Amino acid sequence: MNVNGKSYRTIWLNSDGRSVEIIDQTKLPFVFEIVTLRSLDDAARAISTMQVRGAPLIGATAAYGVCLGLREDASDEALARACGTLAATRPTAINLRWALDEMEKAVRNRKREDRLAAAYARAAEICDDDSETCRLIGEKGAGLIRAHSDHKKGEPVNVLTHCNAGWLAAVDWGTALAPIYRAHDEGIKLHVWVDETRPRNQGASLTAWELGAHGVPHTIIADNTGGHLMQSGQVDLCLVGTDRTTSRGDVANKIGTYLKALAARDNGVPFFVALPHSTIDWSLDDGRNIPIEQRDPGEVTHITGRLEDGSIATVEIGPPGSAAANYAFDVTPARLVTGFITERGVTPATPEGLALLYPEHRKTRAG
Amino acid sequence: MNVNGKSYRTIWLNSDGRSVEIIDQTKLPFVFEIVTLRSLDDAARAISTMQVRGAPLIGATAAYGVCLGLREDASDEALARACGTLAATRPTAINLRWALDEMEKAVRNRKREDRLAAAYARAAEICDDDSETCRLIGEKGAGLIRAHSDHKKGEPVNVLTHCNAGWLAAVDWGTALAPIYRAHDEGIKLHVWVDETRPRNQGASLTAWELGAHGVPHTIIADNTGGHLMQSGQVDLCLVGTDRTTSRGDVANKIGTYLKALAARDNGVPFFVALPHSTIDWSLDDGRNIPIEQRDPGEVTHITGRLEDGSIATVEIGPPGSAAANYAFDVTPARLVTGFITERGVTPATPEGLALLYPEHRKTRAG
Repeated sequence: MNVNGKSYRTIWLNSDGRSVEIIDQTKLPFVFEIVTLRSLDDAARAISTMQVRGAPLIGATAAYGVCLGLREDASDEALARACGTLAATRPTAINLRWALDEMEKAVRNRKREDRLAAAYARAAEICDDDSETCRLIGEKGAGLIRAHSDHKKGEPVNVLTHCNAGWLAAVDWGTALAPIYRAHDEGIKLHVWVDETRPRNQGASLTAWELGAHGVPHTIIADNTGGHLMQSGQVDLCLVGTDRTTSRGDVANKIGTYLKALAARDNGVPFFVALPHSTIDWSLDDGRNIPIEQRDPGEVTHITGRLEDGSIATVEIGPPGSAAANYAFDVTPARLVTGFITERGVTPATPEGLALLYPEHRKTRAG
Repeated sequence: MNVNGKSYRTIWLNSDGRSVEIIDQTKLPFVFEIVTLRSLDDAARAISTMQVRGAPLIGATAAYGVCLGLREDASDEALARACGTLAATRPTAINLRWALDEMEKAVRNRKREDRLAAAYARAAEICDDDSETCRLIGEKGAGLIRAHSDHKKGEPVNVLTHCNAGWLAAVDWGTALAPIYRAHDEGIKLHVWVDETRPRNQGASLTAWELGAHGVPHTIIADNTGGHLMQSGQVDLCLVGTDRTTSRGDVANKIGTYLKALAARDNGVPFFVALPHSTIDWSLDDGRNIPIEQRDPGEVTHITGRLEDGSIATVEIGPPGSAAANYAFDVTPARLVTGFITERGVTPATPEGLALLYPEHRKTRAG
């Protein structure tokens, strides 16, 4: 997507053919800064400190992290150690494990001297595939917005989104925002309600920045607001991403997603989840078994922003003696999800709906 | 309640017998500062800028605002003007109108020279009544926590609350927090999940401060978190306040309350609303007709807190070009409310439940 008129992905191989460049997302929306990853540790740190975040981008960064690890040591032990280090950075997003599995498969049975080239090739492929997957999610999902637009008599379609599932969360295009970009580019009038997404404010800082850069009309709201907007008929459609989707259609996504899904159900508002195939955990049925990451409570008690003089500062919002808790995700049960938008199409959030699009993963009953 | 070992109310008549003192709640939790209100304008500004907030305290401040207005001019026209000015400060909390009605009743039929004394007497009475009402809410509501505690085998009862409905929101004791203080004082083990309550952070800044000052164990969480906590069995009871309650039991409270009520229903968690009689709008049946205040979008895009050097600063969190919207309340339909805790007891959130406690307001069908 475009930043100041120049096309960017969120991650790319440097011209040296070795190191990897990323956009430091902890600095947005205030500073657009490119950071170079030169080692396995750099990649692991970029994921755990959320310089990169979003399930697809975590996967892509982990893939390049394996490459950087193999540069240091291409042995079996080092490969296993690199994958272990990267897998431990974030527990909820399944794309991380998926990407590491893909990298291991690409490298494992090769001779040491061939491993590095194979790894870089597979990482590049994962990135290209993700970009194409997200482009397709945009194409399939735009149809939903288009269909709704036909009934709005020239009024914009109001979409509510939570957190950031835009191009910054993927390699390009994004998941939940891909249909929005596509529909906008087709000339469909739309407006996006952007949940601030406390505690890390990915909505206010990343989604609003992305949408603004692309010219999509949007309004930032406190996370508390979506219910009232749905009650008062101001939301036509909810569109969110997911960090892990189970085989029965339960969805782990940024904390607070579940609350919006409840409000959508209570008000008859369609609630769609956009996802690439790599986000589906076919090994897991019940979403309650997805591990929920707990992060530093300081992310709740402290907020970073821009002072009037333009400098970046962090302020503490609560009384010093108060404890805080920081659960990063919640699980929205499939019953609250109207449907999934994947690179293969739109489908109900049910085992049958997923089996329709992904017959290769269909579970057959024993016997 | 106690602040640094000294007992305070949130509003009191100064020793000069004329001016009124309040705690400036926009400065908490960083600075405990007393502000003197000397005029009608001071009182109106204190309400609209939220130096005082919370439905009962807004009512009490408006009552003293009428007194201060009458000091300047005790004519009928001035009385009407004062009430008009104060009524326009905040649209949602019904206690404001209730208190103004009470003040008008106390003053209207008196001679000019008697009006001032009558007004101060009634304002003092409104404050005393509110304190006693909230004490009773604490007494009645503590029973619910006590009952729950009996089944916790020594584990603390986990209560989730939204916004601030503590003593800072009332004259003393508070509404939703009154049962918590009472239960805590009785030695019942409890722990409070404090919703941060964006955009103005009354949970993180006021509720956490209050609970901390009183020694009640608590944890600040992002507003997004309550759903996950309820799904994972970490909430025994939700307890919130209300700014206006309709005769059928719909509840207007701080934006985001509705989302927690939905999560409570979805997880079988009791959801109680604590309120004094003055919060009930007997003239209104359908909560959807309650006017919802919209405040400055800057409250969403800018957050005030404490820098590391102890100074207070405001930071901007979003990109400069993005719009924001700031709805201050939402309406929780009665069907999602397990029950009301009032100064007269605990009752279902239904017309019949309210009629049981307030027979004087029972509507009889025509004929």
